[in-house]
Amino acid sequence: MFNITGKFARNFTTKASSVRGNAVGGMIFLATVAITTYHLNSTTSYSDAEKEVTDVATVKKPKASPNMYKEMPKYIKKLQHTIVNELEKLEGVGGGKFVWDSWLRPEGGEGISCVLQDGNVFEKAGVNVSVVHGNLPAAMEKQMRARKKEGSVCHPHNPNAPTVHFNYRYFELRDKDDNSVDGGFFTKKSDPKAWWFGGGCDLTPSYLYEEDAKHFHQVIKQECDKNDLSYYPKFKKWCDEYFYIPHRQEARGVGGIFFDDLEDKDSDIIFKFVQDCGNSFLRSYIPIMQKRKDMPFTEEMKIWQQLRRGRYVEFNLVYDRGTKFGLATPGARIESILMSLPLTSRWQFKHEPAFHSREQEMLEVLKTPRNWI
Amino acid sequence: MFNITGKFARNFTTKASSVRGNAVGGMIFLATVAITTYHLNSTTSYSDAEKEVTDVATVKKPKASPNMYKEMPKYIKKLQHTIVNELEKLEGVGGGKFVWDSWLRPEGGEGISCVLQDGNVFEKAGVNVSVVHGNLPAAMEKQMRARKKEGSVCHPHNPNAPTVHFNYRYFELRDKDDNSVDGGFFTKKSDPKAWWFGGGCDLTPSYLYEEDAKHFHQVIKQECDKNDLSYYPKFKKWCDEYFYIPHRQEARGVGGIFFDDLEDKDSDIIFKFVQDCGNSFLRSYIPIMQKRKDMPFTEEMKIWQQLRRGRYVEFNLVYDRGTKFGLATPGARIESILMSLPLTSRWQFKHEPAFHSREQEMLEVLKTPRNWI
Repeated sequence: MFNITGKFARNFTTKASSVRGNAVGGMIFLATVAITTYHLNSTTSYSDAEKEVTDVATVKKPKASPNMYKEMPKYIKKLQHTIVNELEKLEGVGGGKFVWDSWLRPEGGEGISCVLQDGNVFEKAGVNVSVVHGNLPAAMEKQMRARKKEGSVCHPHNPNAPTVHFNYRYFELRDKDDNSVDGGFFTKKSDPKAWWFGGGCDLTPSYLYEEDAKHFHQVIKQECDKNDLSYYPKFKKWCDEYFYIPHRQEARGVGGIFFDDLEDKDSDIIFKFVQDCGNSFLRSYIPIMQKRKDMPFTEEMKIWQQLRRGRYVEFNLVYDRGTKFGLATPGARIESILMSLPLTSRWQFKHEPAFHSREQEMLEVLKTPRNWI
Repeated sequence: MFNITGKFARNFTTKASSVRGNAVGGMIFLATVAITTYHLNSTTSYSDAEKEVTDVATVKKPKASPNMYKEMPKYIKKLQHTIVNELEKLEGVGGGKFVWDSWLRPEGGEGISCVLQDGNVFEKAGVNVSVVHGNLPAAMEKQMRARKKEGSVCHPHNPNAPTVHFNYRYFELRDKDDNSVDGGFFTKKSDPKAWWFGGGCDLTPSYLYEEDAKHFHQVIKQECDKNDLSYYPKFKKWCDEYFYIPHRQEARGVGGIFFDDLEDKDSDIIFKFVQDCGNSFLRSYIPIMQKRKDMPFTEEMKIWQQLRRGRYVEFNLVYDRGTKFGLATPGARIESILMSLPLTSRWQFKHEPAFHSREQEMLEVLKTPRNWI
């Protein structure tokens, strides 16, 4: 859910460098909601980044909303409640309930992890919010890392029902002198020096239902198109590329959208897009679950689902940049980082789907990502 | 099972560099038997290594046996048969049988993977042998990588019974002109330019039985002591350090021994040590399995075992250098690389063993590795 990009690393370090130069601190702010593993998209190291000399303060940018640091958290907390409620409704009478696990970050910020385990419908589901901020550059690296610890995902029991994952996040950087902390948030005096949005959602079925993939993509495309016609094709491709398992030569699932560094329009305008995405999540996923959650299935199908969950583990532990980064961080909240892993999974030597089976059909789609619309 | 060390990378690359200089090729040879994941211990990159200028041919070494390239494969193939037979006996009447999967490497060499899945006693067990050789330096990197593909491990069903892993390997490097290939092996004309042994074995219980850990260590210590009194303390420590999961701050199991780069004595002498280790494997593991395989257990214990298997997956996917390297290799035999993963595993949010429970007892030992003897 916490996404540091190449651009971020550049801006951030450039800012940090100039800060070191004139002994003025900076503050960072990150608000994020996730049904997701979090991601870290940067391959730019700090030392590389420091070679760049562009000062972000001098780059012309679209307008930053002065109150986004309040608006985004307000929105994602509301969204978290809505989603948790709807997922619990899906669990039905006597079904699983989310456990709310809230934490405060001593250096500034808070988080709420909601996890449901071994329910009627979901094997494991999590909906997480975190809002963190901190000073720069003194504890920069440490703080940056300390923050990378969220992640969640919905893994249903029924092999006919797909796993889903989403996350949306907002980041900003301000001059330290411009702000003072008030009740866990800093109060703003000027516009942020740097800011952007990132996020996305994607679907991972064990068995292909074309209508489900189409529905999921249709809903998210509609929201993209309402905001910018270039978004869906661009972000769909980005998603296919990010959630790819090279050693299997397979996509993790049937995709969705993925974007980062979004700052090409005024922040109010992008915020509207992010809200459209967030608000459409239930509409994209719940109807699929209602159709699939009670379908009959065989033991063989359950085994196939568990093998697919194994692939999910492979992606998250081997490739997901946020997970890798988080695990390498001393003192990180490991339970939160690994929350996205399924409750159970399986590895079988040389498992090969039968010719023309539904398992083979699924594999073929994963090997050659399709356009669903 | 295939273990490239810093030293190897140095020797290897230095040799390769000098080979490029005088247009003479080199041949490498690797024989290995494993109940193990394989390991890759090098953090030295080829380019770094090339900066070193020591020519291995000029370094004084203990005597290399001229026929080790035949003796080691002969030994490990025999060992594989013995172990497979004994593990099948443990499965009992109507129990699981190993499937033999034999492969030839077009560029030179062969492998035999034996895998048993979902038997009476073992969830998943594998015993693998590979004997590979190839030319240097033309296809050096490709060949080196192509070879890193073995791995196996025994994961029992019963949570009272421990997972075990072992691997022993021999490596040598010769001048190309000194050899010609004969029936899949090269025939030798001179002594190898570089050679060494590596290997080890370790135990991973879900529940602590001190007597089991002591027995396992006692058997292996006896074999070490017969050969060199410095081996056990040194290799026991090396094992604890290698099979450590930093993000959990836990050892993977109760250890055993791990060694690499062993070339400080004549190769015949070290070969005897390796055979002592290999031959003692059944004596170290089978008695434990006989005691534990039919013990009653609860569903709760099975869940704890599955959580521990999740840790095994975490170690192998996140830290095991061979697995990481193998996964990054285009065209690698992924099924062989991931053979060491358990059939099933589990991740549960914030699972915490009850105070003074047997699960907590196990965790404490993993957090503070003990001396068992």
